[in-house]
Amino acid sequence: MKGIRKITPYVPGEQPNYPDMIKLNTNENPYPPSPNVTEVLKHFEAEQLKRYSSIDNLSLKKALSVKHGLSPDHFIIGNGSDEVLAFCFLACFNSSDPILFPDITYGFYKVWAELFEIPFRELPINSKFEINLKDYEQLNGGIIFANPNAPTGLFKPLSEIEDLLKKNPEVIVIIDEAYIDFAGQSAVSLLTNYSNLIIVRTFSKSSSLAGLRVGYAIGNPKYIQIVESIKSSFNPYSVDMLAEKIAVAAVSDEEYYIKITREICKTRDWFAKSIEELGFQSLYSQTNFVLLTHPDLIIEELNDYLTTHDVFVRYFPKIERLNNYLRVSIGTPEEMEKVYQLMNIYVTKNRK
Amino acid sequence: MKGIRKITPYVPGEQPNYPDMIKLNTNENPYPPSPNVTEVLKHFEAEQLKRYSSIDNLSLKKALSVKHGLSPDHFIIGNGSDEVLAFCFLACFNSSDPILFPDITYGFYKVWAELFEIPFRELPINSKFEINLKDYEQLNGGIIFANPNAPTGLFKPLSEIEDLLKKNPEVIVIIDEAYIDFAGQSAVSLLTNYSNLIIVRTFSKSSSLAGLRVGYAIGNPKYIQIVESIKSSFNPYSVDMLAEKIAVAAVSDEEYYIKITREICKTRDWFAKSIEELGFQSLYSQTNFVLLTHPDLIIEELNDYLTTHDVFVRYFPKIERLNNYLRVSIGTPEEMEKVYQLMNIYVTKNRK
Repeated sequence: MKGIRKITPYVPGEQPNYPDMIKLNTNENPYPPSPNVTEVLKHFEAEQLKRYSSIDNLSLKKALSVKHGLSPDHFIIGNGSDEVLAFCFLACFNSSDPILFPDITYGFYKVWAELFEIPFRELPINSKFEINLKDYEQLNGGIIFANPNAPTGLFKPLSEIEDLLKKNPEVIVIIDEAYIDFAGQSAVSLLTNYSNLIIVRTFSKSSSLAGLRVGYAIGNPKYIQIVESIKSSFNPYSVDMLAEKIAVAAVSDEEYYIKITREICKTRDWFAKSIEELGFQSLYSQTNFVLLTHPDLIIEELNDYLTTHDVFVRYFPKIERLNNYLRVSIGTPEEMEKVYQLMNIYVTKNRK
Repeated sequence: MKGIRKITPYVPGEQPNYPDMIKLNTNENPYPPSPNVTEVLKHFEAEQLKRYSSIDNLSLKKALSVKHGLSPDHFIIGNGSDEVLAFCFLACFNSSDPILFPDITYGFYKVWAELFEIPFRELPINSKFEINLKDYEQLNGGIIFANPNAPTGLFKPLSEIEDLLKKNPEVIVIIDEAYIDFAGQSAVSLLTNYSNLIIVRTFSKSSSLAGLRVGYAIGNPKYIQIVESIKSSFNPYSVDMLAEKIAVAAVSDEEYYIKITREICKTRDWFAKSIEELGFQSLYSQTNFVLLTHPDLIIEELNDYLTTHDVFVRYFPKIERLNNYLRVSIGTPEEMEKVYQLMNIYVTKNRK
């Protein structure tokens, strides 16, 4: 057959689904979304669905505009940050020079580069698993990384990001802030001075709406308009009617989300400290997950042990530098207490 | 700025939104979706949204599998048929030979070809606005058209499509059946014998779920798997959790949809016949819209007149062969009666 793309058939990872499982494998939020979301669902009339959803998502852009103190034309909304990122790649990474990203980061950057045949170079994170931004001082067609980075959970301070933006005025630098609400300072404040910055956000993590598929990018209106044109040339109605209404409701309830985010950070810090006492080592996480290892354990076996007890976490057998690490999403205090207890039992039995 | 895509900034057409308007400009369904959809919404708990939506959409594939009598691996689900079509272009149209499509058809085929830099050739429809499939007997990298075609509403019989498939065994032929439920026979029966056929469907028209964003493709599992791989490399969770549940509910209520579809076809045929008596000419529509003209009227002015009376239909000033035509979606009998009355008044006043 002529014209069929040569691509490795993708077999999606199984999403476990058992009644009493503890699901800590995809960095979902353990708390429900804002009560406002329930209200939207309660009052939504099915008949409205016969009409197309909004093509400009202006109601959500306006809500985000208030939240971030920037005019609505700084925003583009998409079907999850994955779609927004894909559109940004198509809009901004068209140079013949390679784009740069860390060798250990969100795995999709490489997938999109390959899909769109964008030349790329993966720069190794250092022995402490930190991104060294000095490495990015080389000819490039754009830069992208997650801050905090995944699956390390480590955060780069704004001063270093500003320096990177200054040194790369001729290319777009995308900062993927999927986990920013669990950590330090957003780079949004840099947008005023650096038109080469695009920030990508999602409703899937801190907003507790992974199943809804809404994400957005913030940037200079001149470049956001190009990303919008890509969206309009690909799938202009990708944000469905209910998703936009629900996302607006979520944005309006900052108080609730500050509360649950604090709770998650508290649980994370408690969990990291507690497993340290069992001999585990973890990176200083600024996200809703912890990347951990143990000098005396074969982590793959710990993963199997947890799975047998219906605790699902993320193990990366194919990433060499991570194949003795586990990424554990932060659940409720009760869930993390159970995980801690299981780890305690396992460590006692299996210390080499 | 390096790497920014050269693309004409897209300004989306305005979607009118007035309390008493008659909206007949985007081929939406005038009837609400199945009562089953209301039930799904009523019983859906917001908390579920904290988890990611399904990555394989198996519940919807299974429902469609029963509907079409084909195993679930014949289906790929996406965020509206626009996304599915975009994925099909990326998956199947990678030849250096041009893909072929009619010069007057769904406008997005050309947009995707340009976006993905796929060589293409537009073949003129004939003087009766029919696609002549004999024209497609030339070197090509794939073929796509809508059946029934849009905005003409004309239908190609299966025998001609089968002939096209036979003559093009080495390329993928995509039949976009967005409007098939309002017309003749689906090409689904040809799938058994022709592995080069891919059929694309949407929930936006006959299923009355335009605001929900669900579409799908049906094809040989070997090629559907490639389309699925593109989806997995672009935005694997693009169908949100509620959208999948609601689509499943819609598929299960065939009886309701047969009823409203019959109603729309009846209204369409009544409307076409009635405006004929006013001197209008329309193509023989097998869809939920009518493409009409009038030998004694300047159609642009009729369009303005209707707009002033809050009736919104589609006028195509930029398509030369259509610039004295209007595409009128079929609403409820009451809506179409009002449109008929307005046209009657207008014709009486303005006949040249």
